[in-house]
Amino acid sequence: MVSVPTEFNTKMDTDSLRVMMRELGANAKAASRALMSASTADKNAALMAAADAISHRQADLIAENKKDLELGRARGLNAALMDRLELNAERVESMADGLRQIAALPDPVGEISDLSFRPSGIQVGRMRVPLGVVGIIYESRPNVTADAAALCLKSGNAAILRGGSEAAHSNQAIARCIHDGLRAAGLPLAAVQVVATTDRAAVSALVQMEEYVDIIVPRGGKGLIERVSADARVPVIKHLHGVCHVYIDDTADIDKAVAIAVNAKTQRYGTCNTMETLLVAESIAPKVLPLLAKEYAAKGVELRGCARTLKIITDAKAASEEDWHEEYLAPILSVRMVDGLDQALDHIHEYSSHHTESIVSESYSATQRFLREVDSSSVMVNTSTRFADGFEYGLGAEIGISTDKIHARGPVGLHGLTSQKYIVLGDGHIRR
Amino acid sequence: MVSVPTEFNTKMDTDSLRVMMRELGANAKAASRALMSASTADKNAALMAAADAISHRQADLIAENKKDLELGRARGLNAALMDRLELNAERVESMADGLRQIAALPDPVGEISDLSFRPSGIQVGRMRVPLGVVGIIYESRPNVTADAAALCLKSGNAAILRGGSEAAHSNQAIARCIHDGLRAAGLPLAAVQVVATTDRAAVSALVQMEEYVDIIVPRGGKGLIERVSADARVPVIKHLHGVCHVYIDDTADIDKAVAIAVNAKTQRYGTCNTMETLLVAESIAPKVLPLLAKEYAAKGVELRGCARTLKIITDAKAASEEDWHEEYLAPILSVRMVDGLDQALDHIHEYSSHHTESIVSESYSATQRFLREVDSSSVMVNTSTRFADGFEYGLGAEIGISTDKIHARGPVGLHGLTSQKYIVLGDGHIRR
Repeated sequence: MVSVPTEFNTKMDTDSLRVMMRELGANAKAASRALMSASTADKNAALMAAADAISHRQADLIAENKKDLELGRARGLNAALMDRLELNAERVESMADGLRQIAALPDPVGEISDLSFRPSGIQVGRMRVPLGVVGIIYESRPNVTADAAALCLKSGNAAILRGGSEAAHSNQAIARCIHDGLRAAGLPLAAVQVVATTDRAAVSALVQMEEYVDIIVPRGGKGLIERVSADARVPVIKHLHGVCHVYIDDTADIDKAVAIAVNAKTQRYGTCNTMETLLVAESIAPKVLPLLAKEYAAKGVELRGCARTLKIITDAKAASEEDWHEEYLAPILSVRMVDGLDQALDHIHEYSSHHTESIVSESYSATQRFLREVDSSSVMVNTSTRFADGFEYGLGAEIGISTDKIHARGPVGLHGLTSQKYIVLGDGHIRR
Repeated sequence: MVSVPTEFNTKMDTDSLRVMMRELGANAKAASRALMSASTADKNAALMAAADAISHRQADLIAENKKDLELGRARGLNAALMDRLELNAERVESMADGLRQIAALPDPVGEISDLSFRPSGIQVGRMRVPLGVVGIIYESRPNVTADAAALCLKSGNAAILRGGSEAAHSNQAIARCIHDGLRAAGLPLAAVQVVATTDRAAVSALVQMEEYVDIIVPRGGKGLIERVSADARVPVIKHLHGVCHVYIDDTADIDKAVAIAVNAKTQRYGTCNTMETLLVAESIAPKVLPLLAKEYAAKGVELRGCARTLKIITDAKAASEEDWHEEYLAPILSVRMVDGLDQALDHIHEYSSHHTESIVSESYSATQRFLREVDSSSVMVNTSTRFADGFEYGLGAEIGISTDKIHARGPVGLHGLTSQKYIVLGDGHIRR
């Protein structure tokens, strides 16, 4: 028999929930003040000790994870979700390694830039500072608990974590390891708090506590992010979806074009930086499309083409208007032939989700215009869209990829979890 | 007899208002695409031509402004508001000069930073880009129409301006001059649109058009900003209020302390960077407070002190709990004696509005802790809080001072109206 353990209230009465969440918020705010001025050495010590705790307690973590897996089976979770939920020895070790890698990154907090003298004699610069309290709302994968906690800690923020109910035991077990790390380094345990109830109302409460929470990062499917954004009073770092484009220009090098268009679609199907629509300039289409059609056929990618595309790839399906909006996350690709750069820019302007777009071209002018005129979080030249992530960009780790324009755009790493305040140094300066 | 001219509908039916605002939004979005890639030369040409139009049409601007002044008198606006509303020859010329100064600033758009090679061989960097469409909601002063339009234009953003109803004629007349400038430079007129209705519902519509508007900047009193923020679905750059502190540390130089504390309070009373609470370390209070009391008395500043302060400044009033929260914007100052730095930090942590705080100290350790631990948009050492503004910081002009932590903090100039996208340069790179 499977029963939900009493420690995780699936449904709480509204008043207790509100009291509990406000307590969590107040504790996080208090902890954030200590974290703001915590030394790099202490934060790193906490991360290294938490990594060790995760390594040492591997058996315990796997046992707690088994409870979640059993509950998941009983609830009938599908194979993909069950896979994402599972912790094994290798995954536990990679979680610990992730913490060690974040410990090894430079500390962004306190970094001073652009300090220069003004005509009045004062020195003005900017100092990088934590945001304060970060709320993270995520689904199934338990390793997010460790990752997100570590990124927040390193950037000097207190974290309130709300994982999926399906991973509740795993998440609490991971949180205990992180608390061991915080304790070892003498940092407040409220620096990382995992919401103990699986009641959905806790999410609404979290995203509306403006007095305690400075930013919300939802990590998960489009549904989760839309629900969170609709509810939120606190600013949200949104990563809605990735309808990424590759445009093969008139002047493209054919080999590069084929390599990039194949890689961008097929290296992984389920990621947000996977190409979903291929745009091809009319003059180069007769040369490049047949080569691509062969490659895609070999990999089992279904093609959906515009009318002009179908004249070249005769066995492709016809694309509908919906196809240009679609994030397939599957071996399906929509293909559109365009007159040239202007029409490609128009298409991207209309259908892009502002995630990542790439041009394949040997033309100086075309690449410069593409870089300037495409309004996406990542704009690429002669590069596969699959490179759009925090590790590839050298951020070390990312908490998400923002398609917003405000605050942080593109992969959000430690810097995205900080802000800059002005500092002014004077020597008795007064304003005349 | 004074009647509201028909061109400014004070109240519209909901449907027409919605249609009108959506049209404004769609036009702004379309114009923003052209502005995004407009050359620096074209943007500057528009600003210089608009400045010339303002200079040449001085008489017309003053005549239109007279209509607003007459209406204002009929509505019984107070003297301060009437003064803020008034345009004279000097103010018109200074408005034109403002545009010329913004034309002279470096263009932030297109600026590429941190472009470097990654181990994979791709080059990753960041390019500064406009936000898109900026909505600005402001009160009485008509010069904001010119300032805000110019800052948005220079930073490549389309602007939707909603000024106060009391300045409707002046604002439209200024908008016509700016349109002359846009026309002369061949830029779309929808780059700068002034909402033609004075119906308050237009503000609600504007701040909820997420599909068209990228950010809202309210400029005005606390009431305006709170109303806008409560309503908004679009992100808001908030500047709520300034309860600024000066802390005189044990080790302060007495002369600097007196000069700064007097200047921070009395150089201007009505500005948000004016000091509202003075904190003094116990050990130095007997030396510094009598000197300050004398200076403040000479300038007619009313002092409200804590119990310990009253033992030294015996004729001060007693401060209540409310005084520590108060933004007086008047010749009133609350004074609190603290044990030392820790208690000063606690006080600031509790009562500060996160605008600007300054420490007067000769101690290395105290100043370092103050810079690090005070969580305000500007943190100063041995400097009058009155320096906290865009011109003094070298931003050239500011659209407001943000007390938010997200996106922009402190004075918001051209950079605060932009964002950074990632750019990636490859040579056929694919991900393995």
